[in-house]
Amino acid sequence: MFSTFGTLFRASTFGESHGRGVGVVIDGCPARLPLTEAGIQPQLDRRRPGQSRLTTEREEADQVTILSGTQNGLTLGTPIGLMVPNRDQRPADYEHLDTAPRPSHADFTYQAKYGIRAASGGGRASARETIGRVAAGAVAEIFLQECCGVEIVAWVSAVGELDAPPVDALRIDRAAVDQNAVRCPHAETAVRMIAEISRAREAADSVGGVVTCVCRNVPVGLGEPVFGKTEALLAQAMLSIPATKGFEIGAGFSGARMRGSRHNDPFVMKDGRLGTLTNRSGGVQGGITNGEPIVFRVAFKPPSTIGQAQASADFDGQPVTLEARGRHDPCVVPRAVPIVESMAALVLADLVLIQKMRG
Amino acid sequence: MFSTFGTLFRASTFGESHGRGVGVVIDGCPARLPLTEAGIQPQLDRRRPGQSRLTTEREEADQVTILSGTQNGLTLGTPIGLMVPNRDQRPADYEHLDTAPRPSHADFTYQAKYGIRAASGGGRASARETIGRVAAGAVAEIFLQECCGVEIVAWVSAVGELDAPPVDALRIDRAAVDQNAVRCPHAETAVRMIAEISRAREAADSVGGVVTCVCRNVPVGLGEPVFGKTEALLAQAMLSIPATKGFEIGAGFSGARMRGSRHNDPFVMKDGRLGTLTNRSGGVQGGITNGEPIVFRVAFKPPSTIGQAQASADFDGQPVTLEARGRHDPCVVPRAVPIVESMAALVLADLVLIQKMRG
Amino acid sequence: MFSTFGTLFRASTFGESHGRGVGVVIDGCPARLPLTEAGIQPQLDRRRPGQSRLTTEREEADQVTILSGTQNGLTLGTPIGLMVPNRDQRPADYEHLDTAPRPSHADFTYQAKYGIRAASGGGRASARETIGRVAAGAVAEIFLQECCGVEIVAWVSAVGELDAPPVDALRIDRAAVDQNAVRCPHAETAVRMIAEISRAREAADSVGGVVTCVCRNVPVGLGEPVFGKTEALLAQAMLSIPATKGFEIGAGFSGARMRGSRHNDPFVMKDGRLGTLTNRSGGVQGGITNGEPIVFRVAFKPPSTIGQAQASADFDGQPVTLEARGRHDPCVVPRAVPIVESMAALVLADLVLIQKMRG
Amino acid sequence: MFSTFGTLFRASTFGESHGRGVGVVIDGCPARLPLTEAGIQPQLDRRRPGQSRLTTEREEADQVTILSGTQNGLTLGTPIGLMVPNRDQRPADYEHLDTAPRPSHADFTYQAKYGIRAASGGGRASARETIGRVAAGAVAEIFLQECCGVEIVAWVSAVGELDAPPVDALRIDRAAVDQNAVRCPHAETAVRMIAEISRAREAADSVGGVVTCVCRNVPVGLGEPVFGKTEALLAQAMLSIPATKGFEIGAGFSGARMRGSRHNDPFVMKDGRLGTLTNRSGGVQGGITNGEPIVFRVAFKPPSTIGQAQASADFDGQPVTLEARGRHDPCVVPRAVPIVESMAALVLADLVLIQKMRG
Repeated sequence: MFSTFGTLFRASTFGESHGRGVGVVIDGCPARLPLTEAGIQPQLDRRRPGQSRLTTEREEADQVTILSGTQNGLTLGTPIGLMVPNRDQRPADYEHLDTAPRPSHADFTYQAKYGIRAASGGGRASARETIGRVAAGAVAEIFLQECCGVEIVAWVSAVGELDAPPVDALRIDRAAVDQNAVRCPHAETAVRMIAEISRAREAADSVGGVVTCVCRNVPVGLGEPVFGKTEALLAQAMLSIPATKGFEIGAGFSGARMRGSRHNDPFVMKDGRLGTLTNRSGGVQGGITNGEPIVFRVAFKPPSTIGQAQASADFDGQPVTLEARGRHDPCVVPRAVPIVESMAALVLADLVLIQKMRG
Repeated sequence: MFSTFGTLFRASTFGESHGRGVGVVIDGCPARLPLTEAGIQPQLDRRRPGQSRLTTEREEADQVTILSGTQNGLTLGTPIGLMVPNRDQRPADYEHLDTAPRPSHADFTYQAKYGIRAASGGGRASARETIGRVAAGAVAEIFLQECCGVEIVAWVSAVGELDAPPVDALRIDRAAVDQNAVRCPHAETAVRMIAEISRAREAADSVGGVVTCVCRNVPVGLGEPVFGKTEALLAQAMLSIPATKGFEIGAGFSGARMRGSRHNDPFVMKDGRLGTLTNRSGGVQGGITNGEPIVFRVAFKPPSTIGQAQASADFDGQPVTLEARGRHDPCVVPRAVPIVESMAALVLADLVLIQKMRG
Repeated sequence: MFSTFGTLFRASTFGESHGRGVGVVIDGCPARLPLTEAGIQPQLDRRRPGQSRLTTEREEADQVTILSGTQNGLTLGTPIGLMVPNRDQRPADYEHLDTAPRPSHADFTYQAKYGIRAASGGGRASARETIGRVAAGAVAEIFLQECCGVEIVAWVSAVGELDAPPVDALRIDRAAVDQNAVRCPHAETAVRMIAEISRAREAADSVGGVVTCVCRNVPVGLGEPVFGKTEALLAQAMLSIPATKGFEIGAGFSGARMRGSRHNDPFVMKDGRLGTLTNRSGGVQGGITNGEPIVFRVAFKPPSTIGQAQASADFDGQPVTLEARGRHDPCVVPRAVPIVESMAALVLADLVLIQKMRG
Repeated sequence: MFSTFGTLFRASTFGESHGRGVGVVIDGCPARLPLTEAGIQPQLDRRRPGQSRLTTEREEADQVTILSGTQNGLTLGTPIGLMVPNRDQRPADYEHLDTAPRPSHADFTYQAKYGIRAASGGGRASARETIGRVAAGAVAEIFLQECCGVEIVAWVSAVGELDAPPVDALRIDRAAVDQNAVRCPHAETAVRMIAEISRAREAADSVGGVVTCVCRNVPVGLGEPVFGKTEALLAQAMLSIPATKGFEIGAGFSGARMRGSRHNDPFVMKDGRLGTLTNRSGGVQGGITNGEPIVFRVAFKPPSTIGQAQASADFDGQPVTLEARGRHDPCVVPRAVPIVESMAALVLADLVLIQKMRG
């Protein structure tokens, strides 16, 4: 709840784009894990804006510093403080927001909720808040790798109306995902996606998309059977990412159109363990992981900040025309890939620790 | 987490189908609300199996008893204990489950998680667990009605391949929903849905569907900006309902296909307050409610327990053929309607209490 | 917080003296533990009023029923619902409380907090609320016994001005404690304590006392180093028991009078493990258990409900004279013994589960 | 639990003495409060070592930086990150700790708990962890002052065998407390306490003491009636401070020696509200504040790190003689005064926010 995610592996993010920095405190991370800044930085670099023409042009180095919780490259079991200083704030770009809330942005709702809001455009709704999530997720991934060899890979499976064909969830890796700027592992579709994003940018518009994620080697038995079902926690995690509007696991919404005889996953022996022949369940049954890959999809709306003129109203209800200045992502899904992976890692790390109490 | 939902308005469910009963303890409900068993019973009756030929035939009276927390028909501010005794258990129907896990059911994962499982078929994965949610949701609705006039209405918008046309989210009410057994307010589609469910039953099969829900008169400013976004908590709540596989809010997955210039909701003056001309955001912006109706959809898979013979494997990996005995719902979405409403009420009641700390 | 105690081993109590019953839901209890009603009843019987002339004369059978969470005498890992029906309510005895709050009782503060209060005298401040704690504590003790052989024994070490001499914390057991009605294992002092309680009763007065508790065979390494220190959680647990006003661990307040050279516990080899020669720390160092017995003391005030006439004021501030009717304990410490043990068991069971995540 | 304190006003501390710094993230602090670094620094200065010959001689500037959560000197309602960099680490002083645990210190228990521990002497058990508490407490005090005029004042009431006479809890203020280095407002006793601490230092020994605290102008109705009683949360808060071994509220342990007729606090009209003639309850009844001053006492053991030679055992159980090098406080209670105040402020700020949900 609030700015903390998790029950035992707990990540508490802090920071707005206008302050001294953003970061996270991770409480509950096991001791004696290898952890250095170099182990966290790669995912932050994948999240960073300015990686390509596809995303915002702002240069943000986003170098992480470990404030606490390690010694000689090992975790101590104590809270791990991580921080990334803010550099390029440009509050001037946001001055006109004082009188009119941007359509589909959080200006209006923050003002209503708190009676005050950050002048810098976004506050906690700023994409910079996700830096703390990605830093924490990188730590969670180290734990998951050490404890059980979990692999988490996300990719862009749709941009606007363009859908990529299915990929082999058992084999896809981050190298394949990162082969192009849009992070779609299907090269041909990637070319078309990049073109579509360019068209949106040229039109001073934006475009939505879908990120698909697979988690492999997840131990059997994770997840709590009622309110803490694996898919419930993943859904919360994903819908907590800015700009997300939908989540589905396994066959998802298309499974709702099926008969049970087709949707059910029969059991079979696989590699010496009881597995399922198909995986329409998406790796969970009754909320608990069954050892098959967890596969889910997350819908991202088109970014609400666009350069086009928009007819709207100011805080007093007077008509205004808004045109966003500054530099803005026309499409967030390529940069959302490591964020989705990080939130999945936070969910699974928490569930692994929780299940340990039953060991 | 675990069997408790909520931060301030907290519902803790308990009970399996084979024990003495199922129920819920609600902690944090405000004092001086009108609360009697008669105020809770209607939603339990809507959830109850055996309401029509469409759902399971078991007769379960599901009469609720208030164990604590009220006096003279008013809440005391203390924990409200609610219980419904179990009656028709028929454990004999489930005896064959001892050796083989049912496909896409929780038998295998519960055994892996706990090293033990209820012989009665389902344990906490049983649909009877949702009795506690619906009882708690009925209390939450009373609070929401008293504090702010919130109205929550859910309905069946798809069964299998059959989609109902959109309804007017501003006007739909429960009376309209309950006009037919399938709880689809579009009469013509309802007839076809009922026929489809009958066909599935005759084929000893099952069929999935979609429930759509609207929450009206929700105060502006609810929801926490990071991990406790309104949509994140709704997503967790909905994906914690048995058999759910997907959640989307506002334009959802279809919004991911749009350009920002089309998806954005411009601000306008409406009834003396700042509102939005369209509602593709689904009532939330930056995770915080904006005063527009919250509209979301939940995907339910077809029930995994079917009468058809299924080729599967037993716990030892040996091939078996399973045919479910007993009586089973061919389609859960009509009965899921009050469960979706109840979980939405629990989310909103919690967020109202949380926002009070800012008042 | 609120009516739930614990992070992983979670007990949520419910019920007032005037409703249908009181009880508890335990979430997080490990699966496959032996649990029957007969295993819970003994501690409830020790808590029950009417065991002797020393305590209140009301006859309350306090028979516990398991509502959920077990099958064939084993826990399922699911929420364990426990309930004890209310019988002897006598609300008439409390009618005069409507206009004047009893001195040092919770009437005034409940009214201020909730704007309503139970007419039955006590509401959640009633001693009957502790039934849920004792029932949950009995379950926690079964877990602690199974996992690690933990033994918890509490006894009355002071009544009013009468202090019992120290007992051997390594050997004291419940049989020795229960040898007399006042639960002081020092027979000679017990006789004097019983006489003192009788004098208080005859004077229509009440008397306070102290309960001392030892926890043996506690694993090394329990407790969280900052806010979840073992002694911090024990202190919260004990000060949450009605009528408690003080807590000290190890040398406690008398240790504050010492020099460090005398207070420090030097390390020595003991039974093949590193132990301490003395135990002024009371079994914890830096908030974490060190394998020595945990020893702590809890101060109970004299019961505030007394038969003597008391000059006070009514809710309007007008002078009144109050004389409690009905039957009341002149001294609660004998019955508090199992409550102290139960709360200690809840703390330790929770800490054992939490530490498992580090295993 | 863990490194987070509070339910709604939540403080999460991080940092060891050997890392880059220590700090705290405060989540849930209301928006629009005046907050600058200058408003936090004074309590940090009172906590700082090296204020006088009485405490450790290390010079630590302990300058706080606000990382996030404010703009133009006002809180935004978002997480407030506060940090103090580490300067004077001197890990060399602690090298000999690698083989032998210090008596009554946390070396042994941390090693048992985590399988690793900070080489710098203390880790999270270091007194530097309390910097985060004091910084958060300063913010909590600003909120409490703004919302309700709450005043919190703590002082040293005992050092070793020396007890100060009672002070007027209605009038004592921090200026009176700070008139001497030992923070005992009774000047004559303070002189004797200072001499006693000097004697302990000269003997390479240490000495314990007691801190008493009063909270005035606390609203009526704070505190939750069962596990979240005001005194239970205060007890947890105080026993979570390093080196504490006891807590009592109101008449405390001495009240356990009284008859009810003497202990009870009769109601009277006071300043137009219903108050109590005496205050043996210490400001709480049934766990809920009654508007009288909250008064409690906290016992601190003598610091375990002493310069005297101590016979002990190393981690392998071999006899060793330990003599602490470096500089160490002979008595922590003067510096503990702001820590006690801060923890009390965190408890009350949380309870004020919780009670708002009932408004």
